[in-house]
Amino acid sequence: MSDINETKIYLSEKEIPTHWYNIMADMPNLPQPALNPQTRQPAEPPDLISIFPMDLIMQEVSQERFIEIPEEVRNLYKLWRPSPVFRAHRLEKALDTPAKIFYKYEGLSPAGSHKLNTAIPQVYYNKKAGIKRLTTETGAGQWGSALGMACNFFGLECVVYMVKISYQQKPYRRSLMQLFGSQVFASPSENTNVGRQFLAQDPNSPGSLGMAISEAVEDAVGRPDTNYALGSVLNHVIIHQSVIGLEAQAQMAKVDAYPDIVIACCGGGSNFAGIGFPYVYNNLTKNDKVRVIAVEPEACPTLTRGTFTYDFGDVSGMTPLLSMYTLGKDFMPAGIHAGGLRYHGGSPLVSQLLHDGLIEAKAVNQKGIFEAALTFARSEGIVPAPEASHAIKGAIDEALACKESGESKTILFCLSGHGHFDMTAYDNYLSGQIQDFSLPQETLDEAIKKLPKV
Amino acid sequence: MSDINETKIYLSEKEIPTHWYNIMADMPNLPQPALNPQTRQPAEPPDLISIFPMDLIMQEVSQERFIEIPEEVRNLYKLWRPSPVFRAHRLEKALDTPAKIFYKYEGLSPAGSHKLNTAIPQVYYNKKAGIKRLTTETGAGQWGSALGMACNFFGLECVVYMVKISYQQKPYRRSLMQLFGSQVFASPSENTNVGRQFLAQDPNSPGSLGMAISEAVEDAVGRPDTNYALGSVLNHVIIHQSVIGLEAQAQMAKVDAYPDIVIACCGGGSNFAGIGFPYVYNNLTKNDKVRVIAVEPEACPTLTRGTFTYDFGDVSGMTPLLSMYTLGKDFMPAGIHAGGLRYHGGSPLVSQLLHDGLIEAKAVNQKGIFEAALTFARSEGIVPAPEASHAIKGAIDEALACKESGESKTILFCLSGHGHFDMTAYDNYLSGQIQDFSLPQETLDEAIKKLPKV
Repeated sequence: MSDINETKIYLSEKEIPTHWYNIMADMPNLPQPALNPQTRQPAEPPDLISIFPMDLIMQEVSQERFIEIPEEVRNLYKLWRPSPVFRAHRLEKALDTPAKIFYKYEGLSPAGSHKLNTAIPQVYYNKKAGIKRLTTETGAGQWGSALGMACNFFGLECVVYMVKISYQQKPYRRSLMQLFGSQVFASPSENTNVGRQFLAQDPNSPGSLGMAISEAVEDAVGRPDTNYALGSVLNHVIIHQSVIGLEAQAQMAKVDAYPDIVIACCGGGSNFAGIGFPYVYNNLTKNDKVRVIAVEPEACPTLTRGTFTYDFGDVSGMTPLLSMYTLGKDFMPAGIHAGGLRYHGGSPLVSQLLHDGLIEAKAVNQKGIFEAALTFARSEGIVPAPEASHAIKGAIDEALACKESGESKTILFCLSGHGHFDMTAYDNYLSGQIQDFSLPQETLDEAIKKLPKV
Repeated sequence: MSDINETKIYLSEKEIPTHWYNIMADMPNLPQPALNPQTRQPAEPPDLISIFPMDLIMQEVSQERFIEIPEEVRNLYKLWRPSPVFRAHRLEKALDTPAKIFYKYEGLSPAGSHKLNTAIPQVYYNKKAGIKRLTTETGAGQWGSALGMACNFFGLECVVYMVKISYQQKPYRRSLMQLFGSQVFASPSENTNVGRQFLAQDPNSPGSLGMAISEAVEDAVGRPDTNYALGSVLNHVIIHQSVIGLEAQAQMAKVDAYPDIVIACCGGGSNFAGIGFPYVYNNLTKNDKVRVIAVEPEACPTLTRGTFTYDFGDVSGMTPLLSMYTLGKDFMPAGIHAGGLRYHGGSPLVSQLLHDGLIEAKAVNQKGIFEAALTFARSEGIVPAPEASHAIKGAIDEALACKESGESKTILFCLSGHGHFDMTAYDNYLSGQIQDFSLPQETLDEAIKKLPKV
């Protein structure tokens, strides 16, 4: 038994989970099936085999509760896992709150975020299927650098389409991918048909995740040695990220602490699902009553103001249609610093659980995010990524509510990544250049009109 | 007992050392005493009281073997300590060596390097002495950001004179200091008399650590509420860093592994002494025969090509004269990427031990450093700081020697910091723009001529 008054709660490498958790075994309503983009009929495994290996396709549709983690994947997880849970003693003191605040820190991964949790198994299964080359998109660069690192570990080529504005604003993230041997293109690029079309429409396009996905998918579809990899949204990604929550549960139990509230930021939904779903599982099967809260940006409020329906994952309509909360594939979010949360859609699993009232969502604005990030950094020492700072803001809000009510709740949040490559954003904040965004309802209505008919 | 085949060896927070180790209790010859810069007589504590608190001055001259770590310092150490020792399984495999390679990783500190080990106690003792404001210099910015973070923790103001070329080349390090509330000046600056003098001599001066020290000392001497803090070289700094080696010994013992060779990079000498001196202690008192090797840059070869004599710590001759290996305070090292190793002098303790043949030193060149860094990053995942990469290069050389000889030696090195703020250097390396430096003997002879007479 560890001591709740210590700062960090560790597990040994032997306590890395042996299995991932799959919430599809337990949710009362499964998401509507993905649809083939041409036929608009439920997509079958053969529809996906041109871009994904069969092992991942089978995980995508699996209803097995626990899926064994391959030995080779667990061995690579040992480079940084189990990740520590910190008790935020100094933050609690700074807020003068009776709440107990814990955070699971995924930023100690060598790629700097939780993304490596799924990059490693994705590359593993692709290699097993004989694939030599993977394509992907990246926004802020956290996913691209994780996949690049994982490809390097397994000896696969990695081609990353990086959203142009991030490519320009975050040159260090690009350097990191190149250091691990990845080829990086600013998207939209001249490298694909769809990229050339985007450029013809707008030569100065800043790019978007939806566009970059279209490029990466086109690149993969055309080459038999090449598959595509996605860093969030899909069920197999959500499954891989369950290591976060499974470890956290073991760690919290070691100090006999049980969260009342679990919080994470939410873009595509993978780190949120990673820490949250093992707690939803307990809610569903053990009658626990843990509040599980997704925090998203006001500038891209997929879960709080989106529509629950079918939409494409990319801009050009090449991916299967997914049942999810969406702002419409043509919605162009403002250039907020949390580039990893600038995505029009949400994970079908997260969306379905939200629709069924089994989790919560809230949106927060940019100035508040950075204020929370600074409070956190100055008390805990860690400089958080702007994405992860949404979770911090959510946790601080709950801790201050406890101060108001005098309740001593236990709050656990996922600190999904560090901000070492985001210092420009902090410069802007400290010099008063960060602005809030308020999204008019008409903008949302406009994008929703263009949703595909199914 | 942990398992030698695991990847990481952890200690619990309870195993953070309770005492620092002070090699002055055990070395056969103490360094010659520091000299007052005016009188050239041995400096007495009152000579230093205008810039250091008495607790640190007493540590500077202490011959007590173990010095208790204050509770408040140990509590802050818990934010990241004990730091893990990693077994470099994947690097061993990449090198195909029979050697066992371990590294103590200090880059998980929230400031990103070992510097926080001494920043925290230095600020603690200054606060205890009623000081409100600390000044310092920084090169690459690792020390400045550590001191800024520690000042923020204790509520002291922090003023950093950052070598101008680094200020320009590493804007993210400056941002990091500002995020923690530090005031940062590019040195030479208009803020001090000595800074204005340097600028008058050369308005385009890129600055140097020696110049920045002069500015920081001048700023502190003039104000009773202000002290000065140094991130390396001095005995009290060396003492604080002993937590690295003390922890490493406990960790290696847990897997029943004992290093034949201990390696660290060496600029001022603090991380080298930190990991190395507890092993020198065992050599001196338990008849161990561990080789302890300092690795420095060819472009600034203080230990391998310097002179063992008295010199100033700064350019303008404001600091006490220290007995050390030095290239001469006027020596201007080339603009290598390992900015933290661009210092003309060495720690008196390291210098004395080298002079007495109790440790070893070697110099390595820049291309080899980056080649080693890339090999390391691609096998272990961690992107190392250019400074720390000198230790990697040293370790790889020894591991390859083992491959040659067929010996299975155990190598332990200190990975003193991550390279997340040094990606420009990697860009340059990957695009073929990194060059080696060969330092003509005449250049060294020239600088040595200007050594102060004592």
